Amino acid sequence: MSGQPCSLIATILANRHDEAAARATLQEAQARADTLEPWLRAFVHRPDVYAVRDACTRTLAGVPIGVKDLVDTCDMPTCYGSAAYAGHRPARDASIASSIRALGGVVFGKTATTEFAWRDPAATVNPWNRAHTPGGSSSGSAAAVAAGIVPLAIGTQTVGSVVRPAAYCGVVGYKPTYRNIATEGVHPLAASLDHVGFFARSVEDIAVAHALFVEGAHDVLDDETSWRKHFGAAPEIRLGVIRTPFWDDLIAPHQRDNFDASLQRLRDGGAQIVEVELAADLRAMREATLTILAVEAYRAIGHIGERAPALVREQMRALLAQGAATPLSTYQDALMLQATVRAQSVALLQGCDALLTVPASGEAPAGHADTGDARFCAPWSFVGAPAMNLPSGWSEAGLPLGLQIVGAMHEDMKLLRLAASIQTMLGFEARTVPA
Amino acid sequence: MSGQPCSLIATILANRHDEAAARATLQEAQARADTLEPWLRAFVHRPDVYAVRDACTRTLAGVPIGVKDLVDTCDMPTCYGSAAYAGHRPARDASIASSIRALGGVVFGKTATTEFAWRDPAATVNPWNRAHTPGGSSSGSAAAVAAGIVPLAIGTQTVGSVVRPAAYCGVVGYKPTYRNIATEGVHPLAASLDHVGFFARSVEDIAVAHALFVEGAHDVLDDETSWRKHFGAAPEIRLGVIRTPFWDDLIAPHQRDNFDASLQRLRDGGAQIVEVELAADLRAMREATLTILAVEAYRAIGHIGERAPALVREQMRALLAQGAATPLSTYQDALMLQATVRAQSVALLQGCDALLTVPASGEAPAGHADTGDARFCAPWSFVGAPAMNLPSGWSEAGLPLGLQIVGAMHEDMKLLRLAASIQTMLGFEARTVPA
Repeated sequence: MSGQPCSLIATILANRHDEAAARATLQEAQARADTLEPWLRAFVHRPDVYAVRDACTRTLAGVPIGVKDLVDTCDMPTCYGSAAYAGHRPARDASIASSIRALGGVVFGKTATTEFAWRDPAATVNPWNRAHTPGGSSSGSAAAVAAGIVPLAIGTQTVGSVVRPAAYCGVVGYKPTYRNIATEGVHPLAASLDHVGFFARSVEDIAVAHALFVEGAHDVLDDETSWRKHFGAAPEIRLGVIRTPFWDDLIAPHQRDNFDASLQRLRDGGAQIVEVELAADLRAMREATLTILAVEAYRAIGHIGERAPALVREQMRALLAQGAATPLSTYQDALMLQATVRAQSVALLQGCDALLTVPASGEAPAGHADTGDARFCAPWSFVGAPAMNLPSGWSEAGLPLGLQIVGAMHEDMKLLRLAASIQTMLGFEARTVPA
Repeated sequence: MSGQPCSLIATILANRHDEAAARATLQEAQARADTLEPWLRAFVHRPDVYAVRDACTRTLAGVPIGVKDLVDTCDMPTCYGSAAYAGHRPARDASIASSIRALGGVVFGKTATTEFAWRDPAATVNPWNRAHTPGGSSSGSAAAVAAGIVPLAIGTQTVGSVVRPAAYCGVVGYKPTYRNIATEGVHPLAASLDHVGFFARSVEDIAVAHALFVEGAHDVLDDETSWRKHFGAAPEIRLGVIRTPFWDDLIAPHQRDNFDASLQRLRDGGAQIVEVELAADLRAMREATLTILAVEAYRAIGHIGERAPALVREQMRALLAQGAATPLSTYQDALMLQATVRAQSVALLQGCDALLTVPASGEAPAGHADTGDARFCAPWSFVGAPAMNLPSGWSEAGLPLGLQIVGAMHEDMKLLRLAASIQTMLGFEARTVPA
């Protein structure tokens, strides 16, 4: 992408008013994908040719965007990672796909998802070590951005499916406040928990995606003023560290060391760091999350389990069985707890500007049978609060590590501004996998 | 239906283990529909023949159920009341349609809905006076039950689309707690507000539908014990009257007189009646409801307004325009208020067992351009609390009047038990339109 390491902002600026540049961008992305995809397997479908239309007038003209195959697209197969939907062709675009095209963006391909965004893995491997999982469920979106194929990819998160694979692949992953991005046309896993989110290589790129797709600020890159208003560093930053009751049991030493080093860099950068205890019962939240997941997945996907059980994989079968067996009152209690913590979302920050925690218990685990532990992402999906992974270092094995930052519900723009400052203090940038 | 005035319980008991009775029930329903439909227009589609399967083993064998045409059915056209979906055939059943069939129930036909369950009316007329609206958006479901064609119909409520038409048509309408019935496969109007609900002729029938479809208690009619546990009168009932700030301005004298008479009957029946003020800002809730409606309708339906504006009717066009123009922060504030009042749902009852209010400002208005005022239903849809209409009398013009009762979120079974007691105290039964 014109020498820029797959930056969304650089790609937008390079292609604007320049149809030849837009075509070149797409060709470069195709060439890179052709080189990497034989082993990476980030995409389950890529078209052979792309149309570039109205490059002179549309913000995202010629910008290739990976779209998770949980998202309906009217011109490409959409299989939700499920054998039951092999060759499925939706009649129309999901809301987010339609927004991409309205801005002139190019759906570069459908990225691999675990089965219905649950735990049965996709074929994608970790771009930094192909013997390791890329995380899931948005496996292909995270890997495609890490590999420098596309500057932006759409993912979804029901428990930890944006933040965790972003951490495992070493990119920025952003899950906005619940419902801030429409889920219409995205196959539900659990409607009370499902979020649409973004992967990119920098906080600035995520902020531009947020401006374009969430705020509707289509002029965000038109001049310095409209652009800078999305940043403007927060002068005094107070950050609350959430270690959770299972911190010592679960977190690998390299992740713990990296987390402590990140805190030191933030202190050095002038941020005030305080230790806080979450004013909510994490274990009860975890139970409630699993209950909602199981019941709502059974509602959305149970019909396949009943009609074609052979087409449903093992982890999903277990989830559906749990959903079918859950009493209504257990589900009702879970939703009531969710309503309660959502209403307390601002209080959860305890006067801090954001919370800090790990995105996962360590680097991407070896093997492909499992996509890793979502325990450190789950509470924020349950609350519906905005959460992000920022790349923060490398493990001894050469795999990425990350820092998770969490804001209050609906304070996404505040979190994005903070994240830009934190990214600067961490002094760490997403790397690109060598082709 | 074997002499019973279209009771769900009687129909189930008559048809059980008796395939001939099941066939006769369906033929009677067809004959009645054939007689009434030329003027009533409750259905937009009815098949010519029905299959009766496994009458000996399945609870709802041969029970005809009306299903709002907002609900996907794999074997009948599903048009969402929209010209843009004329002849549309969904690939599979919505969750609630699939549940009906799993219990052996018969989707008797698709009932008329306003356009996408918003305000542009269906062709259905009020069964008690064809010059009046039946209410909406579940116009056909309310009318089909009032007319005695089916003992049970499925509706949806986003603002007041079950409770209001139930009141205008003189039947029991029940909107359960938000998400208690899965909305999968129901066309969204506004996902944060959409509910699936029931129409029937008595509280007992609604309680059986609740047991079958929500609690999964498929043995509810197997014996007296399992059945009676759903009732068992509450010995001391305390009911809070909510008059709202717009009571005096909006409510017609006949509705006010009927409401006062209902309160007197409840007092005579031994209930304690107290006047309460809602511990929430109704005007702010109303604003927030309209904001969420507009933004989420635009997300779900805006694509039609953009591609085929001629196929979108006037009220929907206005709603979509409002949604497109609403700033993100306004929507975020509305969702935050909703989270706050949901968490306070139990407190809203102020120690009462249920709240009492009117279902609408009066009888069904004359004319068909408008489906009536949802102002007295809107707060409970916003909160997600269970709400019911109970028929409570007749206006001088011979149109039905009703009483609305509201419970706390997730306390649906408590509300159903209370409703049975209240129904007895009111001493009023739903009548059937003469054929």
